[in-house]
Amino acid sequence: MNQVILGAIGAGRIGKLHAENILKMPNARLKTVADPFIDEDWARGWGLSTALDAEAVFSDDEIKAVLIFSPSMLHAEQIIAAARAGKHIFCEKPIALDPDRIRQALKVVAEEGVNLQVGFNRRFDPEFQRLKQAIDSGEIGRIHLIRITARDPSPPPMEYVKGSGGMFLDMTIHDFDMVRYLSGSEVEEVYAAGTVLVDPAIGEAGDIDTAITTMKLKNGALAVIDNSRQAVYGYDQRIEVFGSKGSIAAGNRTPTRTVRMTAEGVVSDKPLYFFLERYQESFRIEMEQFIRAVQENIKPQVGGEDGLSSTLIGLAAKESLDRGEPIRVTEGPGGDLS
Amino acid sequence: MNQVILGAIGAGRIGKLHAENILKMPNARLKTVADPFIDEDWARGWGLSTALDAEAVFSDDEIKAVLIFSPSMLHAEQIIAAARAGKHIFCEKPIALDPDRIRQALKVVAEEGVNLQVGFNRRFDPEFQRLKQAIDSGEIGRIHLIRITARDPSPPPMEYVKGSGGMFLDMTIHDFDMVRYLSGSEVEEVYAAGTVLVDPAIGEAGDIDTAITTMKLKNGALAVIDNSRQAVYGYDQRIEVFGSKGSIAAGNRTPTRTVRMTAEGVVSDKPLYFFLERYQESFRIEMEQFIRAVQENIKPQVGGEDGLSSTLIGLAAKESLDRGEPIRVTEGPGGDLS
Amino acid sequence: MNQVILGAIGAGRIGKLHAENILKMPNARLKTVADPFIDEDWARGWGLSTALDAEAVFSDDEIKAVLIFSPSMLHAEQIIAAARAGKHIFCEKPIALDPDRIRQALKVVAEEGVNLQVGFNRRFDPEFQRLKQAIDSGEIGRIHLIRITARDPSPPPMEYVKGSGGMFLDMTIHDFDMVRYLSGSEVEEVYAAGTVLVDPAIGEAGDIDTAITTMKLKNGALAVIDNSRQAVYGYDQRIEVFGSKGSIAAGNRTPTRTVRMTAEGVVSDKPLYFFLERYQESFRIEMEQFIRAVQENIKPQVGGEDGLSSTLIGLAAKESLDRGEPIRVTEGPGGDLS
Amino acid sequence: MNQVILGAIGAGRIGKLHAENILKMPNARLKTVADPFIDEDWARGWGLSTALDAEAVFSDDEIKAVLIFSPSMLHAEQIIAAARAGKHIFCEKPIALDPDRIRQALKVVAEEGVNLQVGFNRRFDPEFQRLKQAIDSGEIGRIHLIRITARDPSPPPMEYVKGSGGMFLDMTIHDFDMVRYLSGSEVEEVYAAGTVLVDPAIGEAGDIDTAITTMKLKNGALAVIDNSRQAVYGYDQRIEVFGSKGSIAAGNRTPTRTVRMTAEGVVSDKPLYFFLERYQESFRIEMEQFIRAVQENIKPQVGGEDGLSSTLIGLAAKESLDRGEPIRVTEGPGGDLS
Repeated sequence: MNQVILGAIGAGRIGKLHAENILKMPNARLKTVADPFIDEDWARGWGLSTALDAEAVFSDDEIKAVLIFSPSMLHAEQIIAAARAGKHIFCEKPIALDPDRIRQALKVVAEEGVNLQVGFNRRFDPEFQRLKQAIDSGEIGRIHLIRITARDPSPPPMEYVKGSGGMFLDMTIHDFDMVRYLSGSEVEEVYAAGTVLVDPAIGEAGDIDTAITTMKLKNGALAVIDNSRQAVYGYDQRIEVFGSKGSIAAGNRTPTRTVRMTAEGVVSDKPLYFFLERYQESFRIEMEQFIRAVQENIKPQVGGEDGLSSTLIGLAAKESLDRGEPIRVTEGPGGDLS
Repeated sequence: MNQVILGAIGAGRIGKLHAENILKMPNARLKTVADPFIDEDWARGWGLSTALDAEAVFSDDEIKAVLIFSPSMLHAEQIIAAARAGKHIFCEKPIALDPDRIRQALKVVAEEGVNLQVGFNRRFDPEFQRLKQAIDSGEIGRIHLIRITARDPSPPPMEYVKGSGGMFLDMTIHDFDMVRYLSGSEVEEVYAAGTVLVDPAIGEAGDIDTAITTMKLKNGALAVIDNSRQAVYGYDQRIEVFGSKGSIAAGNRTPTRTVRMTAEGVVSDKPLYFFLERYQESFRIEMEQFIRAVQENIKPQVGGEDGLSSTLIGLAAKESLDRGEPIRVTEGPGGDLS
Repeated sequence: MNQVILGAIGAGRIGKLHAENILKMPNARLKTVADPFIDEDWARGWGLSTALDAEAVFSDDEIKAVLIFSPSMLHAEQIIAAARAGKHIFCEKPIALDPDRIRQALKVVAEEGVNLQVGFNRRFDPEFQRLKQAIDSGEIGRIHLIRITARDPSPPPMEYVKGSGGMFLDMTIHDFDMVRYLSGSEVEEVYAAGTVLVDPAIGEAGDIDTAITTMKLKNGALAVIDNSRQAVYGYDQRIEVFGSKGSIAAGNRTPTRTVRMTAEGVVSDKPLYFFLERYQESFRIEMEQFIRAVQENIKPQVGGEDGLSSTLIGLAAKESLDRGEPIRVTEGPGGDLS
Repeated sequence: MNQVILGAIGAGRIGKLHAENILKMPNARLKTVADPFIDEDWARGWGLSTALDAEAVFSDDEIKAVLIFSPSMLHAEQIIAAARAGKHIFCEKPIALDPDRIRQALKVVAEEGVNLQVGFNRRFDPEFQRLKQAIDSGEIGRIHLIRITARDPSPPPMEYVKGSGGMFLDMTIHDFDMVRYLSGSEVEEVYAAGTVLVDPAIGEAGDIDTAITTMKLKNGALAVIDNSRQAVYGYDQRIEVFGSKGSIAAGNRTPTRTVRMTAEGVVSDKPLYFFLERYQESFRIEMEQFIRAVQENIKPQVGGEDGLSSTLIGLAAKESLDRGEPIRVTEGPGGDLS
């Protein structure tokens, strides 16, 4: 089998996870992992070549595609550098918090004619894939309502909160992408009700931890997302799509299907607690799809425009929260979608 | 046992259901049912005395409490007449569509010192009672979010739609009451996104058939209701309350718990299709509670003010829909709650 | 409506339950309840005439049908007396523990041409009715296997155990009837493995508390029942029927459908604990069916032969347990089915 | 990391699955795969060295452990050869159909002091691991009953049936092992009721396709297994363990957790159809455990004696079926367990 030769930038938690997935794929070879703070023991254990500087990846002619797992503020610049070097690109979300910076990066990607896939991994989750299939096959008819519940098991560290761009750009952005993906429609208007109920420190940092966000879609359907930074029972990720012919809902994944009945009650497993466990398969499948897209030189299933669109919705949601009224996405702070 | 002697006004579908429930209660006697179009066969089968005119009930000194099951536009006037006659009152919702008319009726009820219970039957449903108990006992901590799904199996006849006061006052009003009941808090602000996706005729009649309504509560929590006039799989009534210590959710009731596995799939029962089946127990229990309240001369668990409050939220929701922005309930068209 | 006039013998727990159900039925009138230890307060509360002696019921020409809720050892003699008096009969199970005594009673019933319904209430349970319907409609094809789980929440008092005829005749007899009812087939051979794991006192009384009973049916299918006298989580009543086109299973009924998610787990309701709650509807429906059978003078859906057949299976199961080998029902201690 | 060097014999369906799992493990290296009919394309794609003769594996000093995935009738002789060559051994079940042949192989394994793990993969399944954990931790108290449902989606080819040793040794043997594993107890006596309901050709080949097998365990508990060669809805694998403090049950695994509600019903996914999908994780984990056992030179979690014990139960079950009576395992055709 012809192997795609890859270079990765960043080997933190998510970088290691992706790297280990790639190492199990017969049609890819991860040649170099660049990270100024590389965990050499880990790299040696997996037989990986390392570099301290991303330049080692960009300048390696053998490397056909670059995987960007670095801190978010470096994403746009590394996309540009990789594109200039003629590499295809996989980049974890977000491309950038500033839509103009995203547009700048996408412009270079377009100029250089390389492919860019953005890390909206949840699109590849088997549960949500089944929803998409039910929608596309007409099983539930025309979409009327989309309901998403997305609750974290516990809030991130305050340091992270402060640089995250706020809950809508950090957390809800995945749900905005899911609304767009499932509906096949853009979001026209957004209204966000948000508050601080989990931890006052989050409020002091200018962010919220609890929100209900309502959207009007271009195709006429409505969507609603409820978010919380803390569900004490675990990572709660549910989606229901309701249409003219019925409804389909994805529930939480759990370690096992066992049910225990005792004098205390009938108890089943809590949802998988950690997002890397819950979305384990989606991370693997998104990378398989990226590698296939590189191999076959086809457009990735989720591109830079998807990253931009969800960012614009997030910015509009933030604006709605601040102004206490619904905001049209095209008139939001991110400006026009075009 | 000392029986409470009752008179009923109206013997349509809901009137018959309540009458038959009362006939099975050892501590109540339904003496007279007044209805200008009384179904004499039905009344005879159950051994009931009948009258054509409600006056026969109001003027009967033996009757201690009046049950109003007549068409909605008669409710307020009959409440006033019953109160003037010194009877305790059970009245199906709504008291009236116009809040001033409601206030007028409640004023007479207060002047006469009789008790009034409004037919928000769902409060007595065992599923929702369990939610309330979990909230009150602290099992799920402080409330952060309330999510209600309420979808009818099919739209009412167009004639009914036209006189219904609109979806918010006809259908969502039950959900508004449930938000108030479960949270133990008033609703401060409401934002409604609504549209016509089920039947254009509903839109032509000036109403909507699909909506997402978001509320900010006085206690700081958020709530959201999604409504549809048509869920092809049946009457869909679900509530989830999410708090600082966890979540509790009520699912749909079904004819049986059976699960069938065949080559076609794993199939369980659809939700009970008809609201009289789904809420059968709640209708029985609300009447038992009313009769007990009369017997023990205590305040009913759901009073006239509850009817008024939910009407004001419904009017604010309608205003929000019309103006495309959130509306504070106290500044809505119903005016002040006091 | 033409009311069927009934007399009841026995007003213990099950007698009261049946009586109160009948009092809510428009087409029946319970004229007299005979019990040497009648609870007069209860009878007065419901407006019932009482008698100390069953003779008062047998000799009352107005009474068309007799309901036997007395202690088991009186059943056969009262069936005979009622039949001789020309009354139709509803009798709680068992008719008798001795099959010859049952045959004697059935002979008189046949001679007098009255109808006898035996209290195998579970046949009327909506869950199991759905199984029967799936079988009869061919939804699951030809039956291959029937699996029944029937576990009590706690053992009965030792006094009861001693007079019960043993677990197979007291508890499993309901499951034997269900196997016959669902399969529409007689049981040919039975093998019982039983033991004492719940309470040694049960063993000392010569009984068992835990058993697995396997049956070969005349129609070629196999069936298995697992019983326990103590499931600490409640009354566990499940049935699965597996056939050539699939399977259908009835699960436990619970107070509510709510699901609670907390740090401790995902918890749903335990099964209804008490058999009178679990089978509440079946008790009501079996009596409705009996009354209808009397009104329309048709054969009841579950007759005396059903009582005899299940007793013979129970006796064969006991014999199998004692001898440690499978026993053909027709060669068991109860002798021939004919 | 110090890699364990392995050689595999047999690269059919199950051999390939194991090989691909090993290729993804950092602490193992699969050096050689021997198979007279090796699929060279597959081996090349994964970069594997191949051989036609198992001898190439036995004689390779670098290879520390041998994986036997060959046809069953070769297992015993290859175990002996591998043991004589001083290799640790993983062998798919069964070791042999003849217990004396198994004893012979185990004797050589013992003499040579190598470790042997038998492929009872289900012990490593996360669902069943959870059952084991609940039992060991005392969550459900002392075991009273074990119920296993194991139904294949469709019968194997008739050629396979003829050489399989019969349903008890081919299919139920996994369930016998699970009873022993979960209970931590030997099986004392077994009674099997079996019949042919799926396909008469199976009966003509001298086998059965439907069975209920009851066991009395040394620890006093009872167990029952129901088997069918054809569940049209998929591979049905459920276990319930019932004890003095409650019950824990493992249900089927499905592709997704989605639930679809339409006018036709409420539909969830069918069980995973194919055993390689259903037990995918268990195959991976059993191999990880084997490799760890080799690395750390510890006894595997499931050894040769486990293979022998379950074979003896299977032979006793067959004898019970033939003679129509319960059989004590130690007095069955396999002779003594010692």
